[in-house]
Amino acid sequence: MKLQDIGQFGLIDLIAGLIEKDRDIQSESWRNVIEGAGDDCAVWKGNTANQFAKVDCQVEGVHFNLANLSWEDLGWKSLAVNLSDIASMGGLPRYALVSLGLPPDTEVQNVLSFYRGLLRLAGQSDTAVVGGNVSSSSIIFVDVSVIGQAANPDGHYLSRKEVRTGDLIAVTGWLGNAVAGLRVLQGKTTTDGEEEILRRSFSRPEPRLAEGRLLVEKGVRAGIDISDGLISDLGHLCKASSVSAVVYLDKLPVHSVVKRRFPEKYIDFALSGGEDYQLLFTATPDIMRDLEKTCSCPLTVIGEVVSRREPVIQILDESGREYRVSRTGWDHFKNTDKI
Amino acid sequence: MKLQDIGQFGLIDLIAGLIEKDRDIQSESWRNVIEGAGDDCAVWKGNTANQFAKVDCQVEGVHFNLANLSWEDLGWKSLAVNLSDIASMGGLPRYALVSLGLPPDTEVQNVLSFYRGLLRLAGQSDTAVVGGNVSSSSIIFVDVSVIGQAANPDGHYLSRKEVRTGDLIAVTGWLGNAVAGLRVLQGKTTTDGEEEILRRSFSRPEPRLAEGRLLVEKGVRAGIDISDGLISDLGHLCKASSVSAVVYLDKLPVHSVVKRRFPEKYIDFALSGGEDYQLLFTATPDIMRDLEKTCSCPLTVIGEVVSRREPVIQILDESGREYRVSRTGWDHFKNTDKI
Repeated sequence: MKLQDIGQFGLIDLIAGLIEKDRDIQSESWRNVIEGAGDDCAVWKGNTANQFAKVDCQVEGVHFNLANLSWEDLGWKSLAVNLSDIASMGGLPRYALVSLGLPPDTEVQNVLSFYRGLLRLAGQSDTAVVGGNVSSSSIIFVDVSVIGQAANPDGHYLSRKEVRTGDLIAVTGWLGNAVAGLRVLQGKTTTDGEEEILRRSFSRPEPRLAEGRLLVEKGVRAGIDISDGLISDLGHLCKASSVSAVVYLDKLPVHSVVKRRFPEKYIDFALSGGEDYQLLFTATPDIMRDLEKTCSCPLTVIGEVVSRREPVIQILDESGREYRVSRTGWDHFKNTDKI
Repeated sequence: MKLQDIGQFGLIDLIAGLIEKDRDIQSESWRNVIEGAGDDCAVWKGNTANQFAKVDCQVEGVHFNLANLSWEDLGWKSLAVNLSDIASMGGLPRYALVSLGLPPDTEVQNVLSFYRGLLRLAGQSDTAVVGGNVSSSSIIFVDVSVIGQAANPDGHYLSRKEVRTGDLIAVTGWLGNAVAGLRVLQGKTTTDGEEEILRRSFSRPEPRLAEGRLLVEKGVRAGIDISDGLISDLGHLCKASSVSAVVYLDKLPVHSVVKRRFPEKYIDFALSGGEDYQLLFTATPDIMRDLEKTCSCPLTVIGEVVSRREPVIQILDESGREYRVSRTGWDHFKNTDKI
């Protein structure tokens, strides 16, 4: 059996099973662990606040292609995808480690540009880049680990397991911008000057750190960031919480430029595009009303949580008919799309 | 200018310079940082103990070759190289994140074997594997981050900057075993059943965690682990502390099997072999005498620290003549040896 047969999530389940079986509950380290593999970040009890940690990787030809992403953007984005996971816990980033695989004929200036992009976001988000590694490699890859902590002393955070039947489902910002931005960068659509917002969504995603902290402060307890695609990430939430979800197609927040530039694709972009790094969360109607008044970015209720049944995620169009998605999200070992 | 022109350490200096320039001393995260990039681990103040973090990477064809390393050994070793850095601070490992780049046609069983090897060492060392990432990639790479903490409440640790003139220089265990083991695995020497110790030195290095903690407890303040090779790593210590060193060739602890199997190469193996993951440290003669009585593994004094002069490291043979090394250690972007 090969990885392409079981897919990324099949492999993760097997690994998580091995770790779980092996976990020594007497161990001093394990005793403090609240969430191991399975949420956006690992969570353990610190002395004064819960601690978060996350690693994420960008591989040339899989996650990025330097033909349509600058080294500086790559630096920014490599940190952003991790900070987005800290945001999806409602946490504060603290420390980052940066591991680079680079061919020996890489231009030194390119590596410094990479670091300039990364350090710009690190500075903005109060993340101290405290260490790293450089290694020769035939392909370029970037692996960033971020350590963060709960922003509030009570230690609350956004978990995948806290979704409740009756909750409303909401997202921050726009859906599908990043994949639309990638199409622009790949030259798969004409440009008219209006597409800068899309290009930036793909190249310089802004992790929703302030929004994540606001959510926790307002009482939200369940959330995830959208990296694989709305349907895929909503599926992770539902699976972890043993609930189902109904999503209304006409509620999806799609930017007018995306609708106009990709009239036949924007629904699929919004449902399965991925890489938007928006927050997807659920909360009671009361909390949701409160949030709509206080959040500085767009917040859109896109559906509701229902008790467990099959299918786990149902997408309904305006007339209440079920919409079938052509693809639910990215799977590392099953998808063979070239970026 | 390309990476191969300035080498791994030239690049690291440039990156460290950028980070230093960018560092915001007002920042809440940076305020707690004691050591950024430049020591074996990053160090920051935790609430009750100093915290350590380290990332290290294993790349197929650069660090390992599956023709002479099993997946299970690769798992063990990928964690061991990081734990060795925690050991070289005298710390306790706590949490690990494991990031894997894998081709889609990788056998699932191989990935599980990898994890079995890694989890065996994690269990032995009380390291909780709390998260990770899997990504498709055309080559196999493994990037492990470990977070640890100071074992003692006073927060002391082994730093590269604390070497003092007059200190003695010592190493744990044997030097050159790992590179000799690699030669055995590559079939570059005949086997006679005696070489298992060498093979294991390369495939299953044992991080010197207990020894690192003992050193701190006994008052040692300067140390590093030998990953790049004795001369290279001693050079890092001397550079960080602005001192020079004299090493006596006839004191180097070389295993009898290595001497016998590689009579013409064992000195170079010991001086520049790398991957031994022994601790290299300096201490006053008093502390050294105390350690020799209490340490459970072999400890060998190999030289002494002298005040700064050129050359930084002088190697003297039995008759007091200077020995010239053919190669000081591994450089990722300059060396082109195939593993």
